[in-house]
Amino acid sequence: MQKFYILVLWFVSFNVQSQTNDSVQIRKIYDYYLTQSKTYSNLEYLSTKIGGRLSGSPKAAAAVTWAVKSMYAAGADTVILQPCMVPHWIRGKKESCSISSFKLKLNKELKCIALGSSVGTEPLGVKAKVIEVKSFEELEKLGEKEVKGKIVFYNVFFKQEHIRPGTAYGETVKYRSRGASYAAKYGAVASIVRSMSSVADDEPHTGNMNYDTSLSKIRITSIAISYVAADILAEALRGDKELTVSIKTDCSMRPDTLSYNVIGQINGSEKRNQYLTAGGHLDSWDNGQGAHDDGAGVVQTMEMLAMFKILGIKPKHTIRAVAFMNEENGLAGGTAYGKLAKENNEIHIAALETDAGGFTPRGFGVDTLKGLYNLVVKWQKLFEPYLIEKIEKGGGGADLIGLEKLGVPCIGLEPDNQRYFDIHHTAQDTFDKVNKRELNLGAGAIGALFYLIDKYY
Amino acid sequence: MQKFYILVLWFVSFNVQSQTNDSVQIRKIYDYYLTQSKTYSNLEYLSTKIGGRLSGSPKAAAAVTWAVKSMYAAGADTVILQPCMVPHWIRGKKESCSISSFKLKLNKELKCIALGSSVGTEPLGVKAKVIEVKSFEELEKLGEKEVKGKIVFYNVFFKQEHIRPGTAYGETVKYRSRGASYAAKYGAVASIVRSMSSVADDEPHTGNMNYDTSLSKIRITSIAISYVAADILAEALRGDKELTVSIKTDCSMRPDTLSYNVIGQINGSEKRNQYLTAGGHLDSWDNGQGAHDDGAGVVQTMEMLAMFKILGIKPKHTIRAVAFMNEENGLAGGTAYGKLAKENNEIHIAALETDAGGFTPRGFGVDTLKGLYNLVVKWQKLFEPYLIEKIEKGGGGADLIGLEKLGVPCIGLEPDNQRYFDIHHTAQDTFDKVNKRELNLGAGAIGALFYLIDKYY
Repeated sequence: MQKFYILVLWFVSFNVQSQTNDSVQIRKIYDYYLTQSKTYSNLEYLSTKIGGRLSGSPKAAAAVTWAVKSMYAAGADTVILQPCMVPHWIRGKKESCSISSFKLKLNKELKCIALGSSVGTEPLGVKAKVIEVKSFEELEKLGEKEVKGKIVFYNVFFKQEHIRPGTAYGETVKYRSRGASYAAKYGAVASIVRSMSSVADDEPHTGNMNYDTSLSKIRITSIAISYVAADILAEALRGDKELTVSIKTDCSMRPDTLSYNVIGQINGSEKRNQYLTAGGHLDSWDNGQGAHDDGAGVVQTMEMLAMFKILGIKPKHTIRAVAFMNEENGLAGGTAYGKLAKENNEIHIAALETDAGGFTPRGFGVDTLKGLYNLVVKWQKLFEPYLIEKIEKGGGGADLIGLEKLGVPCIGLEPDNQRYFDIHHTAQDTFDKVNKRELNLGAGAIGALFYLIDKYY
Repeated sequence: MQKFYILVLWFVSFNVQSQTNDSVQIRKIYDYYLTQSKTYSNLEYLSTKIGGRLSGSPKAAAAVTWAVKSMYAAGADTVILQPCMVPHWIRGKKESCSISSFKLKLNKELKCIALGSSVGTEPLGVKAKVIEVKSFEELEKLGEKEVKGKIVFYNVFFKQEHIRPGTAYGETVKYRSRGASYAAKYGAVASIVRSMSSVADDEPHTGNMNYDTSLSKIRITSIAISYVAADILAEALRGDKELTVSIKTDCSMRPDTLSYNVIGQINGSEKRNQYLTAGGHLDSWDNGQGAHDDGAGVVQTMEMLAMFKILGIKPKHTIRAVAFMNEENGLAGGTAYGKLAKENNEIHIAALETDAGGFTPRGFGVDTLKGLYNLVVKWQKLFEPYLIEKIEKGGGGADLIGLEKLGVPCIGLEPDNQRYFDIHHTAQDTFDKVNKRELNLGAGAIGALFYLIDKYY
């Protein structure tokens, strides 16, 4: 019995001791991020010197070149360029959208933006009456009789009452992604969606759309209009159902282009063929600077390499920071990453993505697969001083799609993103919207978590 | 025994039922704030139409007038103006501060701002050599021999490694508040402090200072210079210890002025002489718009009146929203509030202040006095869906000083204020820095808490 007690005591004291050591190390990790890291200056370069970098564009290629150099500068032992063919959609000339109503004596330009992957209009544009709907169900009920030859206007509000704005985004994004094909099914000539915006301003929000050939084989132009523009259009339609809207877009899809995931790697000291991946996506929409989405994630995870090197921590597993390509309109990078992991027989222990903005981190969503959640949740106390309180079951990120298919347990960083959908996919997603402390606290949370996973997994 | 079980079951089911009712009601409360409230538009008016409103100024008087009207508009049964005599400090003409070094061939203006309550310089200013210190201890060691006739420069950094930026502020603010008298004790002719800033920019941060006659009876001018200016001055001093700095300020203290706390009140249906107070402070520094500090707190707490009225909730206790006067440089309003509560034999159940910026709320700091913490912490589950996770022992706010003296249990709203000390007391504390959702989530947390306290206390 006494032996048992001694064992218990030893175990408890070992545990307390190791948590103390870890808490000291985590404090050093946070000190590094908050006082020495290059996270913020790297983001400044990526956002302001390169800027918006849609897959396939010269700026995306410049971002790849920058990421290679920056991964080495951060201390990568190796930088791997992982090829993937990406869609190459171009916006062309600036879009326009205007209302015209003889009855209301109204001629008004509306702030608009073409949705990614959309076809352009004929050079003279498309002009038609408008049918407003609040849901796909309403559209179906109206049917071809009411819809044919018209422009469908999805006037669906981003619900402010959701506490997590991502919930409101999740509810409405289907009108952006599938709205055009749904409208085309009933003979519509174009599709307009109210921007998925948490703020009532005049910024149009872009984002990807897809042509769903199961709904319609006809590809019609699809644009988003700003929140304010949507209010104007809805109000005008109340006064005149016969008003017309003219849309001109110049966008088009070019042949797929070769691009790359950029992987910065610190080789593991003990388990070199076992990988821990943390990443964000390098591509962004073209209208802003891709600062929060997802320059922040790229620089946060890249900085982990510098943290390990500068603090002299030698990870057992191979640590990878990955700047994924093509999250916004195709997931070619994330898919390739999983495919190559399988082909190369890499053993992936865990993977994290941060793609919800560079805001104050509040928690992690962690996969229950292979005991990862049970492991991470034990560290709750270690994270509390850093105001990371929510270690919840969850996980993943769009770019981890390839690894998820291989059964790799995934983690998502969860920031306080109340402000995210004010600027998401708009011209306002710029460097000045990112706060240095918030960005570095997110990077610190990732660095501390990876230190622990590497040590205890 | 069976009876006992039935009792337990009844109790448990009652408890579950009441928590369900409460969760429905709290959802309605949040819906109100997130979709209908005037919090944000009220803040826009206060910040952009009235603007910076230092105690005793015409703008502070305009803010009082606005607050009376707005409290009635929010649904107050009564609006009480509670008199208090406030200091009336005026900045006068814009301050200047410049370095001059013959050796370095350097003549440079530094971004600076006079500290509140400071005396001005002579019309021609003060020009002297500079002695840089990192602490009061260092100043003491240097003593009169090294300090006399010079300008003391407190070059103390705001430590970025603190996870809560308020900790860094707490460490450095003593150089702002007591630095001048400490310097005067050793014969200094003026005092300069590095701005308490969490960002390395060129904005000087003002704030109040006090002349501590126990240290020195001589009142010398005291200014803050920006983070960047402090770097320039420190660098120049490394090159030339003999450089001079010239300071001109035009500030002065006028006779105390009559001002007011503005109290908007909903009369209690059952316990009319028992009060629940929630407040922020109406005065602000003159250089910005006082948006986060503390227009946010004023509009958040004022909106509680509208919430009770519009949702038809009749509170048992008398509910007060208080726009306190003179938090920034005297606490005359907070002091008067407690004094009058005592004189009028008011019974104050609990009081809350929100004065840490209109950011996403994360928790409450709650006094353990009279069982308040034990009560509030039971509601943790009710707050979880609203991402309020930290119900901690703590409490208070500067304006509650008067009530605290009477033993009233106090509460502080705790927002995620990582960005606060970037703009705190600067010209950048403007309306555009406040996010509508974040502001309303804070208001919602206060509204929900007061609904519960009123119901269960």
